[in-house]
Amino acid sequence: MTRPIGVFDSGIGGLTVVREVVKELPGESLVFLGDTARVPYGTRGEAVITRFAEELTRFLLARDVKYLVAACNTISSTCLEVIEAASPVPVVGVVRPAVREAVALTRTGRIGVIGTRATVASGAYEREIGRLAPGAEVISRACPLFVPLAEEGLTHAEATRLIARDYLEGLAGSGIDVLVLGCTHYPLLRDVIQETVGPAVRLVDSAKPTARELAARLRDAGLLDEAAAPEYDLLVTDAPQRTGEIARAFFGGDLPGVLRQAALPP
Amino acid sequence: MTRPIGVFDSGIGGLTVVREVVKELPGESLVFLGDTARVPYGTRGEAVITRFAEELTRFLLARDVKYLVAACNTISSTCLEVIEAASPVPVVGVVRPAVREAVALTRTGRIGVIGTRATVASGAYEREIGRLAPGAEVISRACPLFVPLAEEGLTHAEATRLIARDYLEGLAGSGIDVLVLGCTHYPLLRDVIQETVGPAVRLVDSAKPTARELAARLRDAGLLDEAAAPEYDLLVTDAPQRTGEIARAFFGGDLPGVLRQAALPP
Repeated sequence: MTRPIGVFDSGIGGLTVVREVVKELPGESLVFLGDTARVPYGTRGEAVITRFAEELTRFLLARDVKYLVAACNTISSTCLEVIEAASPVPVVGVVRPAVREAVALTRTGRIGVIGTRATVASGAYEREIGRLAPGAEVISRACPLFVPLAEEGLTHAEATRLIARDYLEGLAGSGIDVLVLGCTHYPLLRDVIQETVGPAVRLVDSAKPTARELAARLRDAGLLDEAAAPEYDLLVTDAPQRTGEIARAFFGGDLPGVLRQAALPP
Repeated sequence: MTRPIGVFDSGIGGLTVVREVVKELPGESLVFLGDTARVPYGTRGEAVITRFAEELTRFLLARDVKYLVAACNTISSTCLEVIEAASPVPVVGVVRPAVREAVALTRTGRIGVIGTRATVASGAYEREIGRLAPGAEVISRACPLFVPLAEEGLTHAEATRLIARDYLEGLAGSGIDVLVLGCTHYPLLRDVIQETVGPAVRLVDSAKPTARELAARLRDAGLLDEAAAPEYDLLVTDAPQRTGEIARAFFGGDLPGVLRQAALPP
Protein backbone atom coordinates (compact mmCIF):
# COMPACT_ATOMS: atom_id res chain seq x y z
CA MET A 1 0.00 0.00 0.00
CA THR A 2 1.32 3.44 -0.90
CA ARG A 3 1.66 6.11 1.71
CA PRO A 4 0.56 9.65 0.81
CA ILE A 5 2.53 12.89 0.96
CA GLY A 6 1.16 15.26 3.62
CA VAL A 7 0.92 18.94 2.69
CA PHE A 8 -0.09 21.46 5.33
CA ASP A 9 -0.82 25.16 5.18
CA SER A 10 -2.22 27.96 7.33
CA GLY A 11 -5.02 28.31 4.77
CA ILE A 12 -5.51 27.40 1.14
CA GLY A 13 -2.74 29.44 -0.52
CA GLY A 14 -0.69 26.24 -0.27
CA LEU A 15 -2.83 24.79 -3.06
CA THR A 16 -0.40 26.59 -5.40
CA VAL A 17 2.20 24.11 -4.08
CA VAL A 18 -0.22 21.17 -4.33
CA ARG A 19 -0.78 21.97 -8.01
CA GLU A 20 2.93 21.78 -8.76
CA VAL A 21 3.38 18.61 -6.69
CA VAL A 22 0.55 16.93 -8.62
CA LYS A 23 2.16 17.99 -11.93
CA GLU A 24 5.69 16.98 -10.88
CA LEU A 25 4.70 13.74 -9.14
CA PRO A 26 1.59 12.42 -10.90
CA GLY A 27 1.81 9.00 -9.27
CA GLU A 28 1.79 10.23 -5.66
CA SER A 29 -1.23 10.25 -3.37
CA LEU A 30 -1.57 13.31 -1.21
CA VAL A 31 -3.37 14.60 1.88
CA PHE A 32 -3.68 18.37 2.07
CA LEU A 33 -4.67 20.10 5.32
CA GLY A 34 -5.42 23.85 5.27
CA ASP A 35 -6.16 25.54 8.59
CA THR A 36 -8.90 27.83 7.27
CA ALA A 37 -10.45 28.03 10.76
CA ARG A 38 -7.41 29.96 12.03
CA VAL A 39 -5.96 31.55 8.89
CA PRO A 40 -4.00 33.87 8.60
CA TYR A 41 -0.88 32.88 10.57
CA GLY A 42 1.34 35.68 9.25
CA THR A 43 0.06 38.29 11.70
CA ARG A 44 0.51 36.06 14.78
CA GLY A 45 3.33 35.49 17.23
CA GLU A 46 5.92 32.73 16.95
CA ALA A 47 4.61 30.60 19.82
CA VAL A 48 1.07 30.50 18.46
CA ILE A 49 2.22 29.76 14.88
CA THR A 50 4.39 26.92 16.20
CA ARG A 51 1.58 25.40 18.26
CA PHE A 52 -0.86 25.54 15.34
CA ALA A 53 1.69 24.02 12.94
CA GLU A 54 2.41 21.20 15.41
CA GLU A 55 -1.30 20.39 15.53
CA LEU A 56 -1.48 20.24 11.74
CA THR A 57 1.51 17.90 11.46
CA ARG A 58 0.19 15.61 14.21
CA PHE A 59 -3.04 15.31 12.25
CA LEU A 60 -1.17 14.38 9.05
CA LEU A 61 1.20 11.97 10.79
CA ALA A 62 -1.86 10.14 12.09
CA ARG A 63 -2.76 9.67 8.42
CA ASP A 64 0.52 7.78 7.94
CA VAL A 65 2.12 10.21 5.49
CA LYS A 66 5.61 9.35 4.23
CA TYR A 67 6.78 12.94 3.80
CA LEU A 68 5.60 16.35 5.02
CA VAL A 69 5.48 19.58 3.01
CA ALA A 70 5.05 22.88 4.85
CA ALA A 71 3.33 24.73 2.01
CA CYS A 72 3.26 28.01 3.91
CA ASN A 73 6.05 30.55 4.08
CA THR A 74 5.04 31.74 7.53
CA ILE A 75 5.29 28.21 8.98
CA SER A 76 8.46 27.41 7.00
CA SER A 77 10.10 30.62 8.25
CA THR A 78 8.97 30.46 11.85
CA CYS A 79 9.13 26.88 13.06
CA LEU A 80 10.37 24.42 10.41
CA GLU A 81 13.15 23.18 12.72
CA VAL A 82 10.64 22.52 15.51
CA ILE A 83 8.42 20.54 13.14
CA GLU A 84 11.41 18.63 11.74
CA ALA A 85 12.70 17.76 15.20
CA ALA A 86 9.32 16.35 16.23
CA SER A 87 8.51 14.50 13.00
CA PRO A 88 9.41 10.85 12.32
CA VAL A 89 9.22 11.60 8.55
CA PRO A 90 11.22 14.24 6.65
CA VAL A 91 9.83 17.75 6.13
CA VAL A 92 10.24 20.05 3.11
CA GLY A 93 9.64 23.76 3.58
CA VAL A 94 9.12 26.42 0.92
CA VAL A 95 11.92 28.80 1.91
CA ARG A 96 15.04 26.88 0.84
CA PRO A 97 13.78 25.86 -2.64
CA ALA A 98 12.81 29.45 -3.50
CA VAL A 99 16.10 30.80 -2.13
CA ARG A 100 18.07 28.32 -4.24
CA GLU A 101 16.28 29.58 -7.35
CA ALA A 102 16.71 33.25 -6.38
CA VAL A 103 20.43 32.78 -5.75
CA ALA A 104 20.82 31.05 -9.14
CA LEU A 105 19.04 33.88 -10.93
CA THR A 106 20.57 37.01 -9.40
CA ARG A 107 23.32 38.84 -11.25
CA THR A 108 23.51 41.92 -9.02
CA GLY A 109 23.64 39.86 -5.81
CA ARG A 110 20.79 41.95 -4.43
CA ILE A 111 17.69 39.91 -3.67
CA GLY A 112 14.35 41.28 -2.53
CA VAL A 113 12.01 39.27 -0.30
CA ILE A 114 8.39 40.06 0.50
CA GLY A 115 6.22 38.13 2.93
CA THR A 116 3.95 38.30 5.93
CA ARG A 117 5.00 40.16 9.04
CA ALA A 118 5.92 36.89 10.80
CA THR A 119 7.97 35.68 7.83
CA VAL A 120 9.95 38.90 7.56
CA ALA A 121 10.42 39.14 11.33
CA SER A 122 11.84 35.59 11.42
CA GLY A 123 14.84 36.51 9.26
CA ALA A 124 14.63 33.02 7.70
CA TYR A 125 15.21 34.22 4.13
CA GLU A 126 18.23 36.30 5.17
CA ARG A 127 19.73 33.26 6.94
CA GLU A 128 19.08 30.91 4.03
CA ILE A 129 20.39 33.34 1.41
CA GLY A 130 23.42 34.01 3.59
CA ARG A 131 24.12 30.27 3.69
CA LEU A 132 23.85 29.74 -0.06
CA ALA A 133 25.30 33.05 -1.25
CA PRO A 134 27.32 34.63 1.57
CA GLY A 135 27.99 37.84 -0.39
CA ALA A 136 24.38 38.52 -1.38
CA GLU A 137 22.43 41.43 0.00
CA VAL A 138 18.83 40.90 1.07
CA ILE A 139 16.20 43.61 1.20
CA SER A 140 12.97 42.39 2.76
CA ARG A 141 9.61 43.95 3.29
CA ALA A 142 6.40 42.80 4.98
CA CYS A 143 3.26 43.25 2.84
CA PRO A 144 0.49 42.30 5.28
CA LEU A 145 -2.45 43.56 3.20
CA PHE A 146 -1.54 41.41 0.18
CA VAL A 147 -3.14 38.33 1.79
CA PRO A 148 -6.63 39.80 2.31
CA LEU A 149 -6.46 41.65 -1.04
CA ALA A 150 -5.70 38.36 -2.82
CA GLU A 151 -8.40 36.48 -0.89
CA GLU A 152 -10.95 39.17 -1.74
CA GLY A 153 -10.10 38.91 -5.42
CA LEU A 154 -8.72 42.46 -5.73
CA THR A 155 -5.84 41.15 -7.80
CA HIS A 156 -5.85 44.01 -10.32
CA ALA A 157 -7.67 46.80 -8.48
CA GLU A 158 -6.40 50.36 -8.32
CA ALA A 159 -6.43 50.13 -4.49
CA THR A 160 -4.10 47.14 -4.71
CA ARG A 161 -1.78 49.11 -7.02
CA LEU A 162 -1.63 51.96 -4.51
CA ILE A 163 -0.88 49.61 -1.61
CA ALA A 164 1.74 47.76 -3.69
CA ARG A 165 3.40 51.06 -4.56
CA ASP A 166 3.55 51.94 -0.88
CA TYR A 167 5.03 48.56 0.11
CA LEU A 168 7.42 48.12 -2.81
CA GLU A 169 8.65 51.62 -3.64
CA GLY A 170 11.82 51.20 -1.62
CA LEU A 171 12.50 47.77 -3.14
CA ALA A 172 12.07 48.97 -6.72
CA GLY A 173 14.84 51.54 -6.34
CA SER A 174 17.24 49.30 -4.40
CA GLY A 175 19.03 47.56 -7.29
CA ILE A 176 17.47 44.14 -6.72
CA ASP A 177 17.13 41.98 -9.83
CA VAL A 178 15.21 39.13 -8.15
CA LEU A 179 12.21 39.36 -5.86
CA VAL A 180 11.09 36.33 -3.86
CA LEU A 181 7.30 36.16 -3.41
CA GLY A 182 7.60 34.80 0.12
CA CYS A 183 3.93 33.99 0.67
CA THR A 184 1.71 31.54 -1.18
CA HIS A 185 -0.88 34.27 -1.74
CA TYR A 186 1.37 36.63 -3.62
CA PRO A 187 1.44 34.84 -7.01
CA LEU A 188 -2.18 35.97 -7.39
CA LEU A 189 -0.89 39.57 -7.30
CA ARG A 190 1.99 38.83 -9.67
CA ASP A 191 0.86 41.32 -12.36
CA VAL A 192 0.57 44.25 -9.96
CA ILE A 193 3.83 43.35 -8.21
CA GLN A 194 5.71 43.02 -11.52
CA GLU A 195 4.31 46.33 -12.75
CA THR A 196 5.35 48.03 -9.51
CA VAL A 197 8.95 46.76 -9.33
CA GLY A 198 9.49 47.02 -13.10
CA PRO A 199 10.34 44.48 -15.83
CA ALA A 200 14.04 44.18 -14.86
CA VAL A 201 13.18 42.31 -11.65
CA ARG A 202 12.54 38.55 -11.90
CA LEU A 203 9.80 37.24 -9.60
CA VAL A 204 10.42 33.90 -7.89
CA ASP A 205 7.74 31.93 -6.11
CA SER A 206 8.06 28.77 -4.06
CA ALA A 207 5.58 26.42 -5.68
CA LYS A 208 7.56 24.92 -8.57
CA PRO A 209 10.98 24.81 -6.80
CA THR A 210 9.38 23.15 -3.77
CA ALA A 211 7.69 20.48 -5.90
CA ARG A 212 11.00 19.82 -7.67
CA GLU A 213 12.89 19.57 -4.38
CA LEU A 214 10.28 17.17 -3.01
CA ALA A 215 10.56 15.02 -6.17
CA ALA A 216 14.36 14.92 -5.94
CA ARG A 217 14.26 14.01 -2.26
CA LEU A 218 11.69 11.25 -2.75
CA ARG A 219 13.77 9.85 -5.60
CA ASP A 220 16.97 9.92 -3.52
CA ALA A 221 15.23 8.20 -0.63
CA GLY A 222 13.66 5.54 -2.83
CA LEU A 223 10.22 6.69 -1.75
CA LEU A 224 8.72 7.49 -5.16
CA ASP A 225 5.32 6.03 -5.95
CA GLU A 226 3.78 5.66 -9.35
CA ALA A 227 0.20 4.82 -8.57
CA ALA A 228 -2.10 4.50 -11.57
CA ALA A 229 -4.90 6.15 -9.60
CA PRO A 230 -3.39 8.36 -6.88
CA GLU A 231 -5.76 9.64 -4.21
CA TYR A 232 -6.11 13.27 -3.22
CA ASP A 233 -7.67 14.07 0.11
CA LEU A 234 -8.15 17.85 0.42
CA LEU A 235 -9.05 18.90 3.94
CA VAL A 236 -9.74 22.27 5.55
CA THR A 237 -10.59 23.09 9.17
CA ASP A 238 -13.42 25.42 8.12
CA ALA A 239 -15.27 25.74 4.86
CA PRO A 240 -17.40 28.87 4.71
CA GLN A 241 -19.22 29.62 1.47
CA ARG A 242 -16.43 31.22 -0.53
CA THR A 243 -13.74 28.60 0.22
CA GLY A 244 -14.25 26.62 -2.99
CA GLU A 245 -14.00 29.75 -5.13
CA ILE A 246 -10.80 30.98 -3.43
CA ALA A 247 -9.35 27.46 -3.61
CA ARG A 248 -9.88 27.36 -7.38
CA ALA A 249 -8.19 30.74 -7.73
CA PHE A 250 -5.08 29.45 -5.91
CA PHE A 251 -5.05 26.09 -7.63
CA GLY A 252 -5.53 27.79 -10.99
CA GLY A 253 -8.48 25.63 -12.03
CA ASP A 254 -10.61 22.74 -10.82
CA LEU A 255 -9.20 20.92 -7.80
CA PRO A 256 -8.23 17.24 -8.12
CA GLY A 257 -10.75 16.40 -5.39
CA VAL A 258 -13.50 17.80 -3.20
CA LEU A 259 -12.59 20.11 -0.28
CA ARG A 260 -13.83 18.40 2.86
CA GLN A 261 -13.99 19.74 6.40
CA ALA A 262 -11.64 18.11 8.91
CA ALA A 263 -12.37 18.10 12.61
CA LEU A 264 -9.33 20.07 13.70
CA PRO A 265 -8.52 21.62 16.09
CA PRO A 266 -10.28 19.55 18.78
CA MET B 1 -16.31 40.47 47.03
CA THR B 2 -17.36 42.01 43.74
CA ARG B 3 -17.65 39.93 40.61
CA PRO B 4 -16.31 41.33 37.35
CA ILE B 5 -18.08 41.86 34.05
CA GLY B 6 -16.72 39.55 31.34
CA VAL B 7 -16.22 41.06 27.89
CA PHE B 8 -15.20 38.83 24.99
CA ASP B 9 -14.25 39.54 21.43
CA SER B 10 -12.78 37.82 18.37
CA GLY B 11 -9.85 40.23 18.60
CA ILE B 12 -9.22 43.62 20.16
CA GLY B 13 -11.76 45.74 18.28
CA GLY B 14 -14.01 45.12 21.29
CA LEU B 15 -11.84 47.47 23.30
CA THR B 16 -14.03 50.22 21.80
CA VAL B 17 -16.82 48.67 23.88
CA VAL B 18 -14.58 48.28 26.95
CA ARG B 19 -13.78 51.99 26.81
CA GLU B 20 -17.46 52.94 26.93
CA VAL B 21 -18.20 50.39 29.67
CA VAL B 22 -15.39 51.84 31.80
CA LYS B 23 -16.76 55.37 31.26
CA GLU B 24 -20.39 54.40 31.88
CA LEU B 25 -19.70 52.07 34.84
CA PRO B 26 -16.56 53.38 36.57
CA GLY B 27 -17.08 51.22 39.66
CA GLU B 28 -17.16 47.88 37.83
CA SER B 29 -14.28 45.44 37.58
CA LEU B 30 -13.85 43.82 34.20
CA VAL B 31 -12.15 40.88 32.51
CA PHE B 32 -11.63 41.30 28.77
CA LEU B 33 -10.71 38.34 26.57
CA GLY B 34 -9.74 38.98 22.94
CA ASP B 35 -9.07 35.94 20.74
CA THR B 36 -6.13 37.45 18.85
CA ALA B 37 -4.75 33.95 18.13
CA ARG B 38 -7.73 33.22 15.87
CA VAL B 39 -8.94 36.67 14.76
CA PRO B 40 -10.73 37.44 12.44
CA TYR B 41 -13.99 35.53 12.91
CA GLY B 42 -15.97 37.44 10.27
CA THR B 43 -14.67 35.38 7.35
CA ARG B 44 -15.40 32.02 9.00
CA GLY B 45 -18.38 29.68 9.00
CA GLU B 46 -21.13 29.65 11.63
CA ALA B 47 -20.09 26.38 13.30
CA VAL B 48 -16.48 27.50 13.81
CA ILE B 49 -17.50 30.96 15.08
CA THR B 50 -19.90 29.33 17.54
CA ARG B 51 -17.29 26.88 18.83
CA PHE B 52 -14.69 29.62 19.32
CA ALA B 53 -17.22 31.88 21.08
CA GLU B 54 -18.24 29.02 23.39
CA GLU B 55 -14.59 28.53 24.37
CA LEU B 56 -14.22 32.23 25.18
CA THR B 57 -17.32 32.29 27.37
CA ARG B 58 -16.30 29.12 29.23
CA PHE B 59 -13.00 30.81 30.03
CA LEU B 60 -14.73 33.92 31.38
CA LEU B 61 -17.34 31.95 33.33
CA ALA B 62 -14.46 30.17 35.07
CA ARG B 63 -13.40 33.65 36.19
CA ASP B 64 -16.77 34.00 37.97
CA VAL B 65 -18.08 36.92 35.91
CA LYS B 66 -21.53 38.23 36.80
CA TYR B 67 -22.45 39.33 33.29
CA LEU B 68 -21.15 38.62 29.79
CA VAL B 69 -20.75 41.14 26.98
CA ALA B 70 -20.20 39.85 23.43
CA ALA B 71 -18.22 42.86 22.18
CA CYS B 72 -18.07 41.53 18.64
CA ASN B 73 -20.70 41.96 15.97
CA THR B 74 -19.81 38.69 14.25
CA ILE B 75 -20.35 36.68 17.47
CA SER B 76 -23.45 38.71 18.43
CA SER B 77 -24.95 38.12 14.98
CA THR B 78 -24.02 34.48 14.57
CA CYS B 79 -24.48 32.69 17.89
CA LEU B 80 -25.71 34.96 20.69
CA GLU B 81 -28.68 32.65 21.37
CA VAL B 82 -26.36 29.63 21.68
CA ILE B 83 -24.14 31.50 24.15
CA GLU B 84 -27.18 32.74 26.11
CA ALA B 85 -28.68 29.27 26.32
CA ALA B 86 -25.46 27.82 27.71
CA SER B 87 -24.58 30.65 30.10
CA PRO B 88 -25.67 30.76 33.75
CA VAL B 89 -25.23 34.57 33.69
CA PRO B 90 -26.97 37.01 31.31
CA VAL B 91 -25.35 38.03 28.03
CA VAL B 92 -25.46 41.40 26.26
CA GLY B 93 -24.67 41.53 22.56
CA VAL B 94 -23.84 44.55 20.42
CA VAL B 95 -26.55 44.15 17.76
CA ARG B 96 -29.71 45.07 19.67
CA PRO B 97 -28.34 48.25 21.34
CA ALA B 98 -27.13 49.63 17.99
CA VAL B 99 -30.39 48.72 16.27
CA ARG B 100 -32.40 50.50 18.98
CA GLU B 101 -30.38 53.66 18.35
CA ALA B 102 -30.63 53.35 14.57
CA VAL B 103 -34.39 52.89 14.72
CA ALA B 104 -34.72 55.94 16.98
CA LEU B 105 -32.68 58.09 14.60
CA THR B 106 -34.09 57.19 11.19
CA ARG B 107 -36.62 59.50 9.56
CA THR B 108 -36.77 57.84 6.16
CA GLY B 109 -37.17 54.34 7.61
CA ARG B 110 -34.28 53.15 5.46
CA ILE B 111 -31.35 51.86 7.48
CA GLY B 112 -27.99 50.77 6.12
CA VAL B 113 -25.89 48.09 7.83
CA ILE B 114 -22.27 47.23 7.10
CA GLY B 115 -20.34 44.39 8.69
CA THR B 116 -18.24 41.31 8.12
CA ARG B 117 -19.33 38.63 5.70
CA ALA B 118 -20.54 36.40 8.58
CA THR B 119 -22.50 39.25 10.17
CA VAL B 120 -24.27 40.19 6.96
CA ALA B 121 -24.92 36.54 6.04
CA SER B 122 -26.53 35.94 9.46
CA GLY B 123 -29.37 38.38 8.77
CA ALA B 124 -29.28 39.34 12.47
CA TYR B 125 -29.61 43.07 11.87
CA GLU B 126 -32.55 42.61 9.50
CA ARG B 127 -34.31 40.45 12.11
CA GLU B 128 -33.67 42.87 14.95
CA ILE B 129 -34.69 45.95 12.94
CA GLY B 130 -37.78 44.07 11.76
CA ARG B 131 -38.72 43.41 15.38
CA LEU B 132 -38.30 47.00 16.56
CA ALA B 133 -39.47 48.81 13.43
CA PRO B 134 -41.53 46.43 11.29
CA GLY B 135 -41.92 48.92 8.43
CA ALA B 136 -38.23 49.80 8.12
CA GLU B 137 -36.17 48.80 5.13
CA VAL B 138 -32.66 47.44 5.65
CA ILE B 139 -29.88 47.61 3.09
CA SER B 140 -26.82 45.67 4.18
CA ARG B 141 -23.39 45.21 2.72
CA ALA B 142 -20.34 43.16 3.73
CA CYS B 143 -17.08 45.14 3.81
CA PRO B 144 -14.50 42.42 4.47
CA LEU B 145 -11.40 44.50 3.75
CA PHE B 146 -12.28 47.16 6.32
CA VAL B 147 -10.95 44.96 9.17
CA PRO B 148 -7.41 44.48 7.79
CA LEU B 149 -7.29 48.09 6.56
CA ALA B 150 -8.14 49.34 10.06
CA GLU B 151 -5.67 46.96 11.72
CA GLU B 152 -2.92 48.09 9.35
CA GLY B 153 -3.60 51.72 10.19
CA LEU B 154 -4.76 52.71 6.68
CA THR B 155 -7.60 54.70 8.18
CA HIS B 156 -7.29 57.66 5.79
CA ALA B 157 -5.40 56.20 2.82
CA GLU B 158 -6.46 56.72 -0.77
CA ALA B 159 -6.62 52.91 -1.19
CA THR B 160 -9.13 52.77 1.67
CA ARG B 161 -11.21 55.53 0.00
CA LEU B 162 -11.31 53.53 -3.24
CA ILE B 163 -12.34 50.35 -1.46
CA ALA B 164 -14.96 52.24 0.60
CA ARG B 165 -16.38 53.74 -2.58
CA ASP B 166 -16.65 50.28 -4.09
CA TYR B 167 -18.39 48.84 -1.02
CA LEU B 168 -20.66 51.79 -0.21
CA GLU B 169 -21.62 53.25 -3.58
CA GLY B 170 -24.90 51.35 -3.65
CA LEU B 171 -25.71 52.35 -0.06
CA ALA B 172 -25.02 56.05 -0.61
CA GLY B 173 -27.66 56.27 -3.34
CA SER B 174 -30.29 54.15 -1.59
CA GLY B 175 -32.04 56.80 0.50
CA ILE B 176 -30.71 55.57 3.86
CA ASP B 177 -30.34 58.24 6.54
CA VAL B 178 -28.69 56.00 9.16
CA LEU B 179 -25.79 53.60 8.68
CA VAL B 180 -24.96 51.05 11.37
CA LEU B 181 -21.22 50.35 11.65
CA GLY B 182 -21.79 46.67 12.38
CA CYS B 183 -18.20 45.77 13.27
CA THR B 184 -16.05 47.04 16.11
CA HIS B 185 -13.26 47.88 13.64
CA TYR B 186 -15.28 50.27 11.53
CA PRO B 187 -15.28 53.31 13.87
CA LEU B 188 -11.56 53.65 13.01
CA LEU B 189 -12.64 54.24 9.39
CA ARG B 190 -15.43 56.64 10.37
CA ASP B 191 -14.02 59.62 8.44
CA VAL B 192 -13.68 57.74 5.16
CA ILE B 193 -17.09 56.07 5.59
CA GLN B 194 -18.80 59.39 6.38
CA GLU B 195 -17.15 61.07 3.42
CA THR B 196 -18.25 58.22 1.14
CA VAL B 197 -21.91 58.06 2.18
CA GLY B 198 -22.26 61.83 2.54
CA PRO B 199 -23.11 64.14 5.45
CA ALA B 200 -26.85 63.38 5.39
CA VAL B 201 -26.28 59.84 6.72
CA ARG B 202 -25.88 59.41 10.50
CA LEU B 203 -23.33 56.77 11.51
CA VAL B 204 -24.24 54.58 14.50
CA ASP B 205 -21.77 52.33 16.26
CA SER B 206 -22.40 49.80 19.01
CA ALA B 207 -19.99 50.84 21.72
CA LYS B 208 -21.92 53.54 23.60
CA PRO B 209 -25.40 52.01 23.21
CA THR B 210 -24.06 48.64 24.41
CA ALA B 211 -22.44 50.19 27.48
CA ARG B 212 -25.68 52.02 28.28
CA GLU B 213 -27.73 48.85 27.85
CA LEU B 214 -25.37 46.96 30.13
CA ALA B 215 -25.61 49.73 32.75
CA ALA B 216 -29.41 49.70 32.62
CA ARG B 217 -29.55 45.93 32.89
CA LEU B 218 -27.13 45.79 35.84
CA ARG B 219 -29.15 48.48 37.60
CA ASP B 220 -32.44 46.65 37.01
CA ALA B 221 -30.95 43.40 38.29
CA GLY B 222 -29.42 45.02 41.38
CA LEU B 223 -25.98 43.93 40.23
CA LEU B 224 -24.28 47.34 40.09
CA ASP B 225 -20.92 47.68 41.81
CA GLU B 226 -19.23 50.85 42.86
CA ALA B 227 -15.73 49.73 43.71
CA ALA B 228 -13.33 52.51 44.64
CA ALA B 229 -10.52 50.66 42.84
CA PRO B 230 -12.04 48.46 40.13
CA GLU B 231 -9.75 45.89 38.53
CA TYR B 232 -9.24 45.51 34.82
CA ASP B 233 -7.80 42.27 33.53
CA LEU B 234 -7.12 42.56 29.80
CA LEU B 235 -6.34 39.21 28.20
CA VAL B 236 -5.54 38.16 24.66
CA THR B 237 -4.83 34.69 23.28
CA ASP B 238 -1.82 35.94 21.30
CA ALA B 239 0.22 39.10 21.64
CA PRO B 240 2.54 39.64 18.69
CA GLN B 241 4.57 42.83 18.61
CA ARG B 242 1.97 45.25 17.24
CA THR B 243 -0.88 44.23 19.54
CA GLY B 244 -0.33 47.02 22.05
CA GLU B 245 -0.28 49.66 19.34
CA ILE B 246 -3.48 48.39 17.68
CA ALA B 247 -5.13 48.07 21.09
CA ARG B 248 -4.41 51.73 21.87
CA ALA B 249 -5.88 52.73 18.50
CA PHE B 250 -9.13 50.92 19.31
CA PHE B 251 -9.29 52.05 22.91
CA GLY B 252 -8.53 55.61 21.84
CA GLY B 253 -5.66 56.09 24.29
CA ASP B 254 -3.78 54.27 27.03
CA LEU B 255 -5.45 51.08 28.23
CA PRO B 256 -6.62 50.86 31.86
CA GLY B 257 -4.29 47.90 32.33
CA VAL B 258 -1.60 45.79 30.72
CA LEU B 259 -2.52 43.37 27.90
CA ARG B 260 -1.58 39.90 29.12
CA GLN B 261 -1.50 36.65 27.22
CA ALA B 262 -4.06 34.05 28.28
CA ALA B 263 -3.51 30.35 27.70
CA LEU B 264 -6.50 29.78 25.42
CA PRO B 265 -7.32 27.71 23.46
CA PRO B 266 -5.78 24.60 25.09
